[in-house]
Order: sequence, then C-alpha cells, then structure tokens
Amino acid sequence: MNDNAKARFAELRVQMKQAGVSAVIIPQGDPHMSEYLSSHWQARRMLSGFTGSAGDLVVTLDEALLWTDSRYFLQATSQLAGTGIKLMKDGLPETPSIAGWLCDNLRAGEKAGIDGMVFSTGAKEDLEMKLNAHGIVLDAEFDVLDAIWPERPELPKGKVFVHDIKYAGKSAKDKIAAVLENVKGQSARETFISALDEIAWLLNIRSNDVNYNPVVTAFLYVSPAGSTLFVDPDKIDADVKAYLDGEGVATAPYSTVADYLRGLPESAKVLVDVSRTCAGITALLGKRAVRGTSPVAIAKACKNDVQLAGVRAAMQRDGVAMVRSLCEIQARVKAGEDFTEMDVADVLRKYRSQSPLFFDESFGTIAGYESHGAIVHYEADRDSNAKVEVRGLLLIDSGAQYLDGTTDITRTIAMGEPTAEEKRDFTLVMKGHIALGSMIFPQGTCGTQLDAIARQYLWKEGLSYLHGTGHGVGHFLNVHEGPQSIRLNYVPAPLTPGMITSNEPGLYREGIHGIRCENLVLTVDAMETEFGRFYKFETLTLCPFDLSLFDTSLMTNQEIEWINEYHARVREALAPGLEGRDLEWLDNNTQPLPLNK
Amino acid sequence: MNDNAKARFAELRVQMKQAGVSAVIIPQGDPHMSEYLSSHWQARRMLSGFTGSAGDLVVTLDEALLWTDSRYFLQATSQLAGTGIKLMKDGLPETPSIAGWLCDNLRAGEKAGIDGMVFSTGAKEDLEMKLNAHGIVLDAEFDVLDAIWPERPELPKGKVFVHDIKYAGKSAKDKIAAVLENVKGQSARETFISALDEIAWLLNIRSNDVNYNPVVTAFLYVSPAGSTLFVDPDKIDADVKAYLDGEGVATAPYSTVADYLRGLPESAKVLVDVSRTCAGITALLGKRAVRGTSPVAIAKACKNDVQLAGVRAAMQRDGVAMVRSLCEIQARVKAGEDFTEMDVADVLRKYRSQSPLFFDESFGTIAGYESHGAIVHYEADRDSNAKVEVRGLLLIDSGAQYLDGTTDITRTIAMGEPTAEEKRDFTLVMKGHIALGSMIFPQGTCGTQLDAIARQYLWKEGLSYLHGTGHGVGHFLNVHEGPQSIRLNYVPAPLTPGMITSNEPGLYREGIHGIRCENLVLTVDAMETEFGRFYKFETLTLCPFDLSLFDTSLMTNQEIEWINEYHARVREALAPGLEGRDLEWLDNNTQPLPLNK
Repeated sequence: MNDNAKARFAELRVQMKQAGVSAVIIPQGDPHMSEYLSSHWQARRMLSGFTGSAGDLVVTLDEALLWTDSRYFLQATSQLAGTGIKLMKDGLPETPSIAGWLCDNLRAGEKAGIDGMVFSTGAKEDLEMKLNAHGIVLDAEFDVLDAIWPERPELPKGKVFVHDIKYAGKSAKDKIAAVLENVKGQSARETFISALDEIAWLLNIRSNDVNYNPVVTAFLYVSPAGSTLFVDPDKIDADVKAYLDGEGVATAPYSTVADYLRGLPESAKVLVDVSRTCAGITALLGKRAVRGTSPVAIAKACKNDVQLAGVRAAMQRDGVAMVRSLCEIQARVKAGEDFTEMDVADVLRKYRSQSPLFFDESFGTIAGYESHGAIVHYEADRDSNAKVEVRGLLLIDSGAQYLDGTTDITRTIAMGEPTAEEKRDFTLVMKGHIALGSMIFPQGTCGTQLDAIARQYLWKEGLSYLHGTGHGVGHFLNVHEGPQSIRLNYVPAPLTPGMITSNEPGLYREGIHGIRCENLVLTVDAMETEFGRFYKFETLTLCPFDLSLFDTSLMTNQEIEWINEYHARVREALAPGLEGRDLEWLDNNTQPLPLNK
Repeated sequence: MNDNAKARFAELRVQMKQAGVSAVIIPQGDPHMSEYLSSHWQARRMLSGFTGSAGDLVVTLDEALLWTDSRYFLQATSQLAGTGIKLMKDGLPETPSIAGWLCDNLRAGEKAGIDGMVFSTGAKEDLEMKLNAHGIVLDAEFDVLDAIWPERPELPKGKVFVHDIKYAGKSAKDKIAAVLENVKGQSARETFISALDEIAWLLNIRSNDVNYNPVVTAFLYVSPAGSTLFVDPDKIDADVKAYLDGEGVATAPYSTVADYLRGLPESAKVLVDVSRTCAGITALLGKRAVRGTSPVAIAKACKNDVQLAGVRAAMQRDGVAMVRSLCEIQARVKAGEDFTEMDVADVLRKYRSQSPLFFDESFGTIAGYESHGAIVHYEADRDSNAKVEVRGLLLIDSGAQYLDGTTDITRTIAMGEPTAEEKRDFTLVMKGHIALGSMIFPQGTCGTQLDAIARQYLWKEGLSYLHGTGHGVGHFLNVHEGPQSIRLNYVPAPLTPGMITSNEPGLYREGIHGIRCENLVLTVDAMETEFGRFYKFETLTLCPFDLSLFDTSLMTNQEIEWINEYHARVREALAPGLEGRDLEWLDNNTQPLPLNK
C-alpha cells in the first residue's frame, strides 16, 4: 500500500473512532444503484487499489477485507498484493457473507457503519436485520468520504442535451403522464426516481456522465403538480432549461434533494421501487414512501415504433462497421502484421465512429484471443495484450451508442484453419443460439423459462457456461437494462413485445479458447390461438457468423436453413453500405451452408 | 341450501356475533397442510356443498362467498346454485383476492376470524399484514367447527402399521439421527413436524387416514433427548408401540400437542418450516421457533437404493396390470360392449389389486373419453359417465400404492382409426415428453428451468397446457410430493439423484379431446466433466405408448429411436409377467416404428 492509501486508511479509522464505528463497508455503489460508476463514487477502488467492477471493502480498526467474485480472484490477488487487504472469495462455500463476517467478528453492542446513500434499501434492510439479530447496531449515515478523500473527483460536469423526439418517439410530457397513471395504479400519487437510465429515458435527456452510459447524474421527483429534476445547474444550459420547462419539469441543484424530500408534506404518497432506490432516500421519505415496482422500467424496456425503426437503422450501420472491421482484422493478421487484441478494439472504434449518429461505444470492447477468450470479462491492457496469429479463435464482444439505438454484438472467428474441437464447440453454442432465436412462447413467459433452450446441446455433452444467456438492452442508453433477463436465476419479468434482449450463449475452455455468439433479438407477436397470444424473437443484429466454424454434421437441416436465411438477410441489408474488398468479404461470408442429405 | 346447511350457517353467525367477528374464512385445509383432507377437516365442503379439491369459503354476517379456480368454475356454479353463496372466480383479473375483498368490505376496527390451525404460518402472516394495513384485526383462534357441526366426523381411527425396512431401506432411528444433524445445521436443536407424509416417512409407519395417501394423522416432535409422536392412542397397537419405543419415539395423545408445546422450556430451539406448519403451531412455539426449511423433505424425496429397487419391481407389476387392462379395455370396446369410463377404472383396479404388495390406488382414476379427456381433473361419476366407442381418444391417468413403491401413469389411446389431428396432437405432446426425458442438465438445475423443454413443440404451433409438467412422487406415500416440481412457476428445489418426478406434458382441446403422456422418471448421474456434475433422467414407468398415434413424419429419427428403445425395454421387462392374449398385445404394441429416410 502506498503512503497516500495508508494516510486515507488512517484518516478513515480516525473518523470511525470518533463515530464509535467498529467496521465500515465501502461498497461498489452510488446513490442511483448504477452498474457503472462515475469516478466520484469509486471509493472502494481508491482505497483498495482493486479496479474490478464488482467488490466491496470492509474496514475495521485493525483489518481490511475485500469481497469479490470468481471473475476477479486472479486480478484481486495481484492488485491487493502487499496492501495487507485480505481477499474474501465470494461464492466459495467457505467464505462468509459480509453480514455473516460482521456478525462473527463484532460483539453485541458494537456499531457497523455504512453510507445509506450507496446501499439499496433492500440491501441495507437485510444487513440491518442480520446485524440486529446479533445485537450489532447499524449506523446508516456514516458518510466520511469527503473527509478522508481530499482529491475526490467532482460529480460529472458534462452538459445535458435533449434526445430528439425523432429518435425517442414519445415526448417527456406524454411519458410522465403515463408514469403518473402507473403510480396511481400502485396506490400512490407521486414518485421518486433515482435510476439514471430511467430519468434519461423519461425526460429524453442524455449526457456523458458515466463511461459508455449516456446518462445524466440526477434525481427526479414526479408529481401531478409538476416534476423536479435535481441536477448540477452547470450541466443545464438555457436551451435545455427551456426544453425542461416546456415538458413541465423544474430544476433544482442536485445537492438540495435531501432538503426537498424532508420538506414534502406528510400527505405525500411517493412510489419508490426499493430495489432501485438507496436506503438514504427511502429513509428521507419515511412514511411518505409507498413501496412498489418502478413505474418506468417496463415502459422503457418496451420500445416504441420510432425507437425500433432507429434500432433497425443503427443495426444496419453497425453491421457495416462490423464487416469492415472483421475484413481488416483478418487481412492484417493474415498479412503477418504485429496485430494485437488492443488493435482489434481500435479497428472497431475506427469504423463505428465513421458511422452517422455514432456517439460512443456501449462498453469496453472485449477482444480475447485464444485462452484470453475464456476469461469472460477480459479486457486487454498493455500487460495482457496478445498478438493475434493465423490460428485459433478470436472472440470479439463490442457495441456502440448511436443516437438512434444501442448495439451489442459478439462474434467468434477462426484466425486460421479451425480444428475439429473448435468447430464442434462453436457449433454446439450456435445450436443453442438458433434454438433460442427460433422459440415461440406464450404471453407471460419469462427468460428463466427459456434459458435451458440455449444450453441444452452443451449440457448433453457435459459443457456449460456460467453467465446469463440474455440481458435487456436500452435505446441510446445502458447496454444492460432490466427488467427482463434470460438466465438460470429466477427473473420473473415476462418477455414482452418491444423488449430488446441479447441472445448470447457461450463456452469457455480455460487456457484454450472462448466462444460466444451474440445477436440482439426483439420480442414480437407470433400468433394468437385458442390457447392465447404467442410471441417470438426477431433478430435485429446484422453480421455474418464465421462459416468456417460450422460443423454441419452436428446440425439439423432446420438449423442450417436458419443460418442460411439469416445470412441472406444480412447480405441484403449490408451490401448497399459496402464496396470493394468489404463487399467481397460480405459475399464470401454469407454463402449458404450445404444441407445434410 | 337445505335446512341443515341453513342451520349451520345460522349457528356460525351466532358464534361470529358472540366473538365480535365480522367475517370468517373457512379454507380447504387441515393442521398438517395436507393436499387431501380427511372428512374431519372438510368444513368448507360441509358448509358450501361444493366438493372440488380447492376452494375457500368466506362468511360474513349477511353474505357467503366461495373462491375457487378455473378448474372448478363449472362445477362450483352448479353446486352453489340456490345456496345464495356467491362464486368468486379466482385467477380472473376482476376477482379480488380474499384479503383484498376483506379490506374492501370490512371497516377499520372490524375483526376477521380464522382458525390458525388450518392456515399455513405464511398464509396467516400475509393475511394479517394486509388486513392490519387497513386497520382490520385478525383473530387467528376463531375455531367454532365443533360447535356448529354436531355430526362432524371423527378424526381417522385406522390402525397404524410399520412399513418394513425391507421396503423402506433405512431405519427410523437412522433417519431421525440424520434429521437432527440437518436441524443442527440450521442453528436449531429440536424440530416439530406437521406434514403427514414427512412423519410417515421418517418413522416408517403408515395407515389409511386419507383416501389414496397411506398417512397417519399425527404430529411429531423430534429432539436429541427422544421424540414424541402425537397420535390417537386407539390407532397404535402394542406391536407398533413396541416398535416406536425401540426407535426412540414415545407416544402421546394427538389432542395433547398444544399443551406439550406450551410446556416446552424457553431454551428450546425448534426448527419449523413455516410453509408446512400451521399458524397455530408456530404461535404455540413462540420464540422457541427457529424458522428454516424442512429437515425431512429432501431426504424423503431422494430415494435410497432399497426404495429404488422396490419402485423398479413395482413398476414391472404395475406395467403388467396396465397391459392387461389396456388389452381388456380395447377388446371389450371393440366387441361392442356397453363399456364406460367408470368401467375403465374398474378394470384397472381389478388387475392392479391382483398384484402382490398392492395396497390401494394412489389417486382416483381419471378416464376421460373424447371431450371429457379435455377436462384436466375429470373423474367420471354416474351423471357424466360416457360410453367408450370405437373412435376418438381415451385418456387414462391412474396409479397404485404398493408396499414397495407408488406409481402414476397416463396413457392416451386411440379407440378407432386415429384422425390426422389426433396423431399430430399426440405426436407434439410426445416430442416434448421425449425431449424432457432425454435431457442432461447440470447439478443445481430446477424444474422451472426444464419445463419449456417439454412445451417447445406445442408452443411452436400455438398450443399449450396449463398444468405443470412434473411433480415429485413419494415411496408408498403421497403421489404428489415436493420439494421438486417441473412447472412454469418458479420452484427452486434442484432435481437431485434419487428424486422421482413425473414427465407429463399434455394438450387439451375443449369439447374435442385431451392428451397426456406420463411416465415417472428418476434423476440419476450422467457424467462429471471440468464443468461439473451432470444428471439425466431414467424412465421408471413400463408401459407402451399407442403406436397408432405417432405421426413419424413430425419426428426426428433420434425421437423415433428413443421410442423404439423404450418399447424394447418395456417388452423385455413385462413379457415374463404376461401370457396369451396379453402377451400378444404387448408384442403388437411394442413393435419398432419405422425411421424416416
């Protein structure tokens, strides 16, 4: 641990002693329950030096421990070396939960501290119940970051801009009216929204406050009498202010939200979704809080026709950029250039950023060559950056934010002549991808019910993958959004027309290669019968899969036809945007596979 | 409503007025959270005249309402006609829940009454929370059945007998020791068991207290210092008493359980599974209750090798009885006899009861001819009893209790030359049955994750069925048991080696026909790879499917081979038990289907 970090720990412990706190939890979290944090909220990273996207730090007066999951065991071991911070391997049977550890290591009457503004209400209440059962007190207002972190980054200062209704399809005013109807249906009158993507969607505003997520750091109070956006005034120029006024939304400084909530009349009935609202906010609302489910999440997830037209156009441009990238990558590797994983990311960024309406990437490109492909959350850096050779598999997971839609695509390509094992593994993954992509299912079906459809062919061979099969995708918003999800864990949200979800089974052989095949799919109507309404998926993503990796002897003719029809559609959609070498590449890579006799 | 029923309602309302209770809920329930009730607990049926297996009655001072689900809308409408009891169609969007109705119809300060002994702890607590939010008080000790029901049937008086260890495979003493280990792992020391099948399994005792379920009406307190069975002393003869003593189990009268629990020391730490324990018992335990999951359920569900050998033997005998029955049914119908659905049930009973170790049927036979087959819970009675003709489909769902195992099998057979639609419907159901039966899945997989595997081919055609795909089955015990279940609703219990579960997809065309194809399957090890342990299903049930109903043009050769291999196995297993006409029938009905070219 360097002297700076030591000084911060020392100051933290001074603060703990002053407050009579025996242990403090510094989580990966912010007041908006965000998946990605702006640097202002990266306290856990600052204190521990561990840079993974998941991990919570516990500091006592004489110890420090970091909980993180299996994705990060290697990275955390290396980054914590020499710091004295103990790694707690989350998910292993012998590792206690943080609450369990605190119960075992604090005595009755001792106090644990958290900042309730960076814990979800549910997480805080669960922790408090467990601690109280052991006589341990929870101080949920222990917020000392400003005091111990003199160089703490400011909250993001980027300008807010309006997401034009020609892309958004529905005005903020209309969305607010629908949200208030929903709120009424949940026996409340007002609502308080903390989730940054919900606020951005509802008001048709964007900014660049969080890497890859074009959100605005803000809170939003929505009431039939008018709404208030709590946001740094420096972020709002006169035009945006005038726009918000026109939509019935006043602004107030971000820092005044607590006072505002304290000042609400006792009669207010404010709907909050406690899974998306921090404990601090729920505490401020007190008896005025009506617990329910987000009045925004499903409306945001079900894209309107204007959004869908935009997404389809964005998919065409993204497919063109993908084809140009794949063509260049293969050519440069074949030419014997010293071409690395980081170069892959650069090529993708180059072609995407040439696309009209490009705003940003939608997440950091994962380009994993050979064994690196087997590390699910791999992102090449200067140390790991591998040279791509004329052999083995290259996994490329990337995406973009366009003003008219968000993309997320994974392709796995053979850099040389693929081996039989590479083809077999790839084909088993694709069989699951095709099976899920061709499902028809009744209204009310949730992703948990469909997940095994994508896994069945791998399971038959004793193979599996540990990540989910599909996540929701925003519209010029977060590349991960709810409420729907296709995964083994139970997520009850039904797959509903208008929802965009990824279809991304995979297979990871440690030390050898990783395979993932990802398209985005739209839930659409399939038919209505005496048994009710049935839905299906329309594949939105447009980009060839690597023809050389299919072992058609393992496929049914129905599966082969699915691929051939998809590739014909890809060719037709992308050809007008390509020329020369790229067009030739598209043509070669969308040829029909031969059917089995 | 007849005069007797009127008098009971009048007396109930006298009791309600005396206790200051404005509304009372009379549920379908007993103190053991049983699915099937002995007549002593059939108060809802007695008061309402409605005989369905699901339905709760609410009585106020001037109204009576019965909630039941869609299976029973027709039956309830007919049975409630003229009683003045209003039918509340549960599951329809416009129908409030009972709690919701009470909140809307009682005023703050009013009191609702229930007998906490016939509500699960969870149901009572949920109800109380909702009522309290509206200022309504819940009296959970409002038990007036003895007072208003002079001819109330006694508790069952049948003798208890010991289930021989040569069938049970493990002694009560050993099972109790394992249960106490489990209890310790849940931070408790003792446990209290209410579920009748759990008690019967744990102590290796049986009786005939409930139709089809060979259980003993009792409670069981299990403690490291010895256990106590609360049971009517008349049910226990000297041999059984001596057996129980030998296993470390004392007996006490059933009626003394409340006093016993009140008298437990304050220091007792009694594990209860609140989903299987009534609110009355949990209240009696008070702070001594440690909430957890049943220490019996998973051990009971995972059959030991002795039990499995028994089940395999029982399946062979049951298959022989099925073949003889199907052969006779087809012959008699073909011969032009006046042969009805109730005759089908008689034939099955005749052949099963000739089997060694036969004890009882495991549920009332469902024999549904043509449109009756589409009524999922159909049981023919004198009014409905249809003559079976030489055409159309006959659905037969039946099973038996043998001392060495419980069976449950459904076959759908064509009585004449099947139509194209009958064959197509049957084949789509069978494709799902085969897909589920051939699944391989990783350790930890639960039934909810596999359910769509059985439905996918129906869904593709806009078809569906509303019941679950599979339920657990006991060993010479209840034909429905948990914790596992294969269904659309989320049931987290993983499918574990030793569990016996049904595989029974179906399809019901109202007014036309019903199809269900049911085998019992055993979860067994499939393989272990670098990705972990994988399980598969071994089909236990032995009986041919109707060959004339397969449309092989809709099937893959893999599916056809699955059927052919199954039928070869059935023939080999059952032939030694058959002769003459029956053997010939078996041979004809297990011929291989031709593969597609």
